[in-house]
Amino acid sequence: MRGLMQDYPLTVDSIFRRTEAHYADRLLVSAGPVPIRTTYGAWAERTRRLGGVLDTLGVSADGRVGTFAWNSTRHLELYFAVPGTGRVLHTLNIRLFPEQLTYIANHAGDEVVFVDRSLLGLLAPLLPTMPGVHHVVVMDDLGPQNPAALPEITTAQVHDYEDLLAAAEPVDFHVTDENQAAAMCYTSGTTGNPKGVVYSHRSTWLHSLTATTASVAGVTDADVVLPIVPMFHANAWGLAHAAPMVGAAIAFPGADMSPAGLLRLMQAEHVTLAAGVPTIWQGVLPLLDGVDLPDLRMVLCGGSAVPQALSEAYRRATGLPITQAWGMTETHPIATTGSIPARNLDDGDDALARRRSRQGTAVPGVELRIVEPGTTEALPWDDEASGELQVRSPWAASAYYNPDEGVTLAAEDGWMQTGDVAAIDSFGSVRLVDRTKDLVKSGGEWISSVELENEIMAHPEVAEAAVIGVAHPKWDERPVAFVVRKPGSEITAEDVLEHLRTRVAKWWLPDAVEFIDEVPKTSVGKFSKKDLRLRYSDYRLDT
Amino acid sequence: MRGLMQDYPLTVDSIFRRTEAHYADRLLVSAGPVPIRTTYGAWAERTRRLGGVLDTLGVSADGRVGTFAWNSTRHLELYFAVPGTGRVLHTLNIRLFPEQLTYIANHAGDEVVFVDRSLLGLLAPLLPTMPGVHHVVVMDDLGPQNPAALPEITTAQVHDYEDLLAAAEPVDFHVTDENQAAAMCYTSGTTGNPKGVVYSHRSTWLHSLTATTASVAGVTDADVVLPIVPMFHANAWGLAHAAPMVGAAIAFPGADMSPAGLLRLMQAEHVTLAAGVPTIWQGVLPLLDGVDLPDLRMVLCGGSAVPQALSEAYRRATGLPITQAWGMTETHPIATTGSIPARNLDDGDDALARRRSRQGTAVPGVELRIVEPGTTEALPWDDEASGELQVRSPWAASAYYNPDEGVTLAAEDGWMQTGDVAAIDSFGSVRLVDRTKDLVKSGGEWISSVELENEIMAHPEVAEAAVIGVAHPKWDERPVAFVVRKPGSEITAEDVLEHLRTRVAKWWLPDAVEFIDEVPKTSVGKFSKKDLRLRYSDYRLDT
Repeated sequence: MRGLMQDYPLTVDSIFRRTEAHYADRLLVSAGPVPIRTTYGAWAERTRRLGGVLDTLGVSADGRVGTFAWNSTRHLELYFAVPGTGRVLHTLNIRLFPEQLTYIANHAGDEVVFVDRSLLGLLAPLLPTMPGVHHVVVMDDLGPQNPAALPEITTAQVHDYEDLLAAAEPVDFHVTDENQAAAMCYTSGTTGNPKGVVYSHRSTWLHSLTATTASVAGVTDADVVLPIVPMFHANAWGLAHAAPMVGAAIAFPGADMSPAGLLRLMQAEHVTLAAGVPTIWQGVLPLLDGVDLPDLRMVLCGGSAVPQALSEAYRRATGLPITQAWGMTETHPIATTGSIPARNLDDGDDALARRRSRQGTAVPGVELRIVEPGTTEALPWDDEASGELQVRSPWAASAYYNPDEGVTLAAEDGWMQTGDVAAIDSFGSVRLVDRTKDLVKSGGEWISSVELENEIMAHPEVAEAAVIGVAHPKWDERPVAFVVRKPGSEITAEDVLEHLRTRVAKWWLPDAVEFIDEVPKTSVGKFSKKDLRLRYSDYRLDT
Repeated sequence: MRGLMQDYPLTVDSIFRRTEAHYADRLLVSAGPVPIRTTYGAWAERTRRLGGVLDTLGVSADGRVGTFAWNSTRHLELYFAVPGTGRVLHTLNIRLFPEQLTYIANHAGDEVVFVDRSLLGLLAPLLPTMPGVHHVVVMDDLGPQNPAALPEITTAQVHDYEDLLAAAEPVDFHVTDENQAAAMCYTSGTTGNPKGVVYSHRSTWLHSLTATTASVAGVTDADVVLPIVPMFHANAWGLAHAAPMVGAAIAFPGADMSPAGLLRLMQAEHVTLAAGVPTIWQGVLPLLDGVDLPDLRMVLCGGSAVPQALSEAYRRATGLPITQAWGMTETHPIATTGSIPARNLDDGDDALARRRSRQGTAVPGVELRIVEPGTTEALPWDDEASGELQVRSPWAASAYYNPDEGVTLAAEDGWMQTGDVAAIDSFGSVRLVDRTKDLVKSGGEWISSVELENEIMAHPEVAEAAVIGVAHPKWDERPVAFVVRKPGSEITAEDVLEHLRTRVAKWWLPDAVEFIDEVPKTSVGKFSKKDLRLRYSDYRLDT
């Protein structure tokens, strides 16, 4: 027996219609370089015109529309006009290496790229490597006071965004298939080519609604949201859809990502909810002395684990600890949030601080499990057992877009493999432990390299430590620690092992401790175990 | 191009799994007659067993399972076990007339009815008229201290709920089609047979999530929800699904719907959110003197318009005005809520009180329009133009279940016709004006009978007034007022018209004012214009 309910598709354009109809007076602000103050009403009118622009440019019915832009009101126009007209928004990460950008634009099939003028210098040299990009639309965030000549572009037609808008007719948005693609975002893993995640209208709608629930971010029309997390990072964690859905004002940082600029924006616009990665909050922290932020009600942080010390520092400085969330580009991204459950509200400060360092509980719409890596067998939620974290959700990716041979995402029974290793407590609170590929498999048991590294780095004479698995004839793999001494230290391998003996299980003790000058790093400063493994691929244990 | 997201169905059993996994320790309470204190953990275990009971009883794969019960933890078990096993929950309204109950149970095709022992006396005499009901399962809310014999039942097998549960095996719930029926609820219009609304898993899931958004009811695990609105009224306004979804505790009133009992429960269980119709809150009001309800954060009210005086009385007594919501059985029911928009928070007390008497703004997921009755042409949102309110939403009904000839719900283009007449202001706030069938169509223009009645009843010598349209050769219809004088009053027709002249447009003035002893009423005490029209069907205007 079927329900007798309307066949109402969950689409991005239904969010747009809601914003336009209910919140025309709510503010949208971009910090600049040229500041913009506007309203959802004016934004909606421009967004409808932008739909007309896409038609005029001849972008295919489901064509990919690239953006290469800061967080701004114009970027928000693209967020709705592109999927609203049935096309697919492709937010290009401005921080990628040139060859990655070329790969991604070509792999997605971008037909046009909308680019902030302040970023054109980065994009223009790459355009000859993107033969499918026929149009480049320049959004002038620098303004007429800053009249530097545009770089020469010969492989695509160049347009001015405002000129196109002024000449265009507004259009109506009516997407009827909620499973249609709305947006794409590439994730650059540490190995292989970047991988494309394709969000649907349905997944975007549902993820947005969940973000506005009181137990997640509780966004309302009384909020002023500051998405510091870029709009090319999983849709600014969904805030660029969730805020319009409920009429929250948005303050966009534009090109000014400096700690002082962000703090100024928070104060000037009475920001209530700000979201950014730990590095951002680390940067803002020293400026908080004597600063009053009475409107701030939530500091949302994700992207990588939030150090307990950072969250506590915010609690002392602003009265508000940092709220951690966990997710991935492949989960839209919000999968868990670390808001304190009601049962723990009366815990002491130390217990609360420890709890906030966990990744938190699955949001409504997300189901989690941990499994023995490579199997589909669920492990217990006892905060002891750890296994690969897997996700089921209407906003979890089922597959990558045209993936390379052998690249998969789904486990045998359809759950999404995250590659993260976690333990889960009896009420569902997640604690990340490691990445699956950084686990060391010894005699059929898993050893967490990250836990070993953390213990070694807790030694006062250790600057850095990275642990990798090395082939072993009997145990399959055994851990080897690569350690960087602090200047002046003469710590020995035996000292390191002695330090570990009271801290980890005996069979976790590395078979060797090697001293090196520096742990190799990725372009964003993370330990590159890939490079470490490569460098020591000939390493043999003395067995 | 399709999104590459998991095909994750939005189902009632996914809510169940979430509650079971995250909130096993949260409290569920039933006031009685025999009080129950339990947890979601114990509830989940019993609910899985109840799934086994339905199998054992041989209920068809998509069979309708009737309930005839108060709000209780057992009723909540049925709420999840029935749709969780693919069957359809049919909540019977215990307050209907016997012939309506018979009609409804037979029309839905109920195979089994779960009934509270305290209500068995109402149901048992009707069972011989319900030949499809093969099983009656008695939930003993009276307890062994109250060992009255069961009424004799010969047309169905009688079981004890707890005996069946004890003997059953727990089952897993895995519904895969989100458009499958989850529950039915009949609405008894003022004309014709009751009409069945069939909720899907998808509509239930989405409606629940929206109820937990911060701009609607903002339910979290820190809440203790008191659903006074019956679970046979559109799923207790969705709270019986929304609270488990986010782990809010629930305090069920059971059979004690007395104002004193409800207030006692609110105090004892530290209720934070209570929901009921205006009559309930009117009943509780006189008891609030000197009572402290520090935990209460929201008093939700719907079902009929909330008088401004009532809301203000609550504001004075508890610090909390009543939050109005509007909807219908056909909209699950939440369609609008009257929370104060951020832009109005600084309005004065009087303006806020007037605003709270409006039905409020469409919740996320609901689109509204007003149209000239009988057309699909949208009228402006200027708070002046009024027309039939129509709804598009994933939780708006598309049609009734096997409706009588000629009974429709959808307008030509699919929007749901509500039969309510409303004006909408420029930011989407709805103000109900009338019911379409109570409008008077004069010379192609609409006259609101309810507005006329309100103006006439504002006269100090008028006790009651009802206005109906009467056939007119030139104007099609003209309004006639039927007025009940207050005791001792000798007010005349001309006095009434004189009173109206400064209050309504000239062409709205009734063509006649007739004095009667009483306005006929329905079984629930509303003015019955149907009976009035019937009684005066021979009435002719003197033209």
